[in-house]
Amino acid sequence: MNIINGGVTAAKGYKASGVEAGIKYSNRKDMALVYSEKPATVAGTFTTNVVKASPVIWDKKLVESGNPVRAVVLNSGIANACTGSIGDEYNLWMADEMAKALSINVDEVCTASTGVIGMQLKKEPIAKGCVMLADTMADTYEAGTLAAEAIMTTDTVSKQCAASFEVDGVTVTVGGMSKGSGMIHPNMATMLCVITTDAVITKELLQTALSDVVKESFNMISVDRDTSTNDTALLLANGEAGNKVIDKKDENYEKFVECLKYVCVTLAKIMAADGEGATKLLEVKVINASCKEDASVLAKSVITSNLVKTAVYGSDANWGRILCALGYSGKEFDPYLVDIIIESVIGSLKLVENGISTDYSEEFATKILADSEVTVICDMKSGNEEATAWGCDLTYDYVKINGDYRS
Amino acid sequence: MNIINGGVTAAKGYKASGVEAGIKYSNRKDMALVYSEKPATVAGTFTTNVVKASPVIWDKKLVESGNPVRAVVLNSGIANACTGSIGDEYNLWMADEMAKALSINVDEVCTASTGVIGMQLKKEPIAKGCVMLADTMADTYEAGTLAAEAIMTTDTVSKQCAASFEVDGVTVTVGGMSKGSGMIHPNMATMLCVITTDAVITKELLQTALSDVVKESFNMISVDRDTSTNDTALLLANGEAGNKVIDKKDENYEKFVECLKYVCVTLAKIMAADGEGATKLLEVKVINASCKEDASVLAKSVITSNLVKTAVYGSDANWGRILCALGYSGKEFDPYLVDIIIESVIGSLKLVENGISTDYSEEFATKILADSEVTVICDMKSGNEEATAWGCDLTYDYVKINGDYRS
Repeated sequence: MNIINGGVTAAKGYKASGVEAGIKYSNRKDMALVYSEKPATVAGTFTTNVVKASPVIWDKKLVESGNPVRAVVLNSGIANACTGSIGDEYNLWMADEMAKALSINVDEVCTASTGVIGMQLKKEPIAKGCVMLADTMADTYEAGTLAAEAIMTTDTVSKQCAASFEVDGVTVTVGGMSKGSGMIHPNMATMLCVITTDAVITKELLQTALSDVVKESFNMISVDRDTSTNDTALLLANGEAGNKVIDKKDENYEKFVECLKYVCVTLAKIMAADGEGATKLLEVKVINASCKEDASVLAKSVITSNLVKTAVYGSDANWGRILCALGYSGKEFDPYLVDIIIESVIGSLKLVENGISTDYSEEFATKILADSEVTVICDMKSGNEEATAWGCDLTYDYVKINGDYRS
Repeated sequence: MNIINGGVTAAKGYKASGVEAGIKYSNRKDMALVYSEKPATVAGTFTTNVVKASPVIWDKKLVESGNPVRAVVLNSGIANACTGSIGDEYNLWMADEMAKALSINVDEVCTASTGVIGMQLKKEPIAKGCVMLADTMADTYEAGTLAAEAIMTTDTVSKQCAASFEVDGVTVTVGGMSKGSGMIHPNMATMLCVITTDAVITKELLQTALSDVVKESFNMISVDRDTSTNDTALLLANGEAGNKVIDKKDENYEKFVECLKYVCVTLAKIMAADGEGATKLLEVKVINASCKEDASVLAKSVITSNLVKTAVYGSDANWGRILCALGYSGKEFDPYLVDIIIESVIGSLKLVENGISTDYSEEFATKILADSEVTVICDMKSGNEEATAWGCDLTYDYVKINGDYRS
């Protein structure tokens, strides 16, 4: 696998754009387009929230139909969630405006929205935005970057990455962009993500690959345990690489999954580190658990604990809160087997051995935790399975951003 | 039912005390005693955390034995959690010191601890504290208050209340005290609670009453979703009222439950309002749900949402977050049936009708939410069951307190 600089335009046959349509805020890009020159097979994963935004309902239909798509139009001003049947009509209208501007069919256009809940879309800026998106789209790195910037809300950095691999001498590329900063929690965060690939791959394997990879990437990050109404990850495959079709779970499929996982985990980690108000990326690795499900649940329990998150913010090696969070995860284990280790570029330190405090240096522990990327390893010593979750610290700024988000 | 001023010494035949033993901090009361002159039947509910503190393990044994107890000794300096077999020995030693000071048996002494996790108890101050507790105990209101004060950690107010009722002309009293401020979450918060009653009641009904009432009081509060290692609620009944024994689920049992529920809900609400860093008590009522379980899960999902909690802190009527939190609770419902109303002493306002925003005044909504006690009503319109949960806003001070708790 070869890591490359880029995002949704890295793979062959894709264009993108990002513009200021003025949907809710001025002087901010708020609409983005990802366009495939050829019809693309599409896979998707969506929020598990009972309350689903209109674009989620629309995209699910398109993905389930099995028909190829050509474009994804995204807006980052208004979420179009909790907007009733009018919201559905407005979403369809947005897809249609984009389709007209691109001279394609409405059911070839996926949609995604993020922003304020409960407000209806505004037709005038969106109509104008769709035309601007079509007029300015390009297959360059810069165009992909503009798109990644245009989907940001409270994000402080734009998020994109790409990688490629070889299938019998043919280069296949996977690239993606995402947004997400608050309302971030496993089972699809308030995140929008569009990934493009030029791979030739069957619809079925494309969906399987995405569903499997999402479990170990986007579904393992948490900023605040709030699972949003709009979470969407779309994966388009237009076949422009011309590789031998990936139609079974062979070596080539594994290479594709590895590459897709790199893209998804990288985006997930950038999102976690950019969590609202975050000053640190927190990684929780549960190792030697008795089964994969336990490892995953235990890791998520620690990553979502407000008390762990505030302790990490304060660089306080409060391992009792980590063991406590493992304990209320709902999974059974023997506390007196557990080791807890903290790590950063500064070094590594075992805080707990067999459930009891080691005689560690609080000073060194604080130094390790003061770094901007901190890993907590929980060794359950009861099996061979592991899982990793990513999150961030809980800070004054999280409270500030969310105490006054709408104004 | 008659609400009375008092706590653990309100019922007949109980003494209490609270002293400065100097276990971890100086100039702070840190040990408390509740003593019954006659052997008392005891019921208990405990943390569901896999990681259980030594006193929890000890108390569970005593409660399960069915034998009466005479005393509860509590310390608020060191939690004695994650302390291994040495922690168990130290806990037994503490019970024994208390038993010797009171001239009773060690298995008549329940224990409770709260404070820092992972540290071993200190023998010298505790031995001294036990003697001081026995020497100073009294059956007065003031003695009960000293005990309530001595179990505080990050609590800003001491918590006690009492009520009485009549059984065939005989007055029966129930009174209690509790502590809890952080690590507060359903399934027993980091809370210690001791309730005393002079009722004559069977062991079986005493436990049933406590278990049922805890579900609708302590298990419906949440400050930060962290279920602690030490949660303990003990209910002692010494029979000193001399009422006709309550041995079946008749009218007298119902009166007892009503009185116990008043005490537990009152303590639960004071704990929620005193959540770490809280500026407001938040009450979430889910009404007209299809079943009790759904009502309870939906109410807890809203009360625990960091995004709802920060919005309440900012007095922002961000109802989208409320509907979103209902949506990810794991319970199915039709979002387009839901009404959301906010209430405080300022007034009442419907924000959402049938899942869609009403044309409400943001200014009036902000005024309602600016009060120190705010209620959110979620009308599911799909049945007749309801549940209420209590919590608080998420503030800068929560982060401050927990970013630097141990130092």
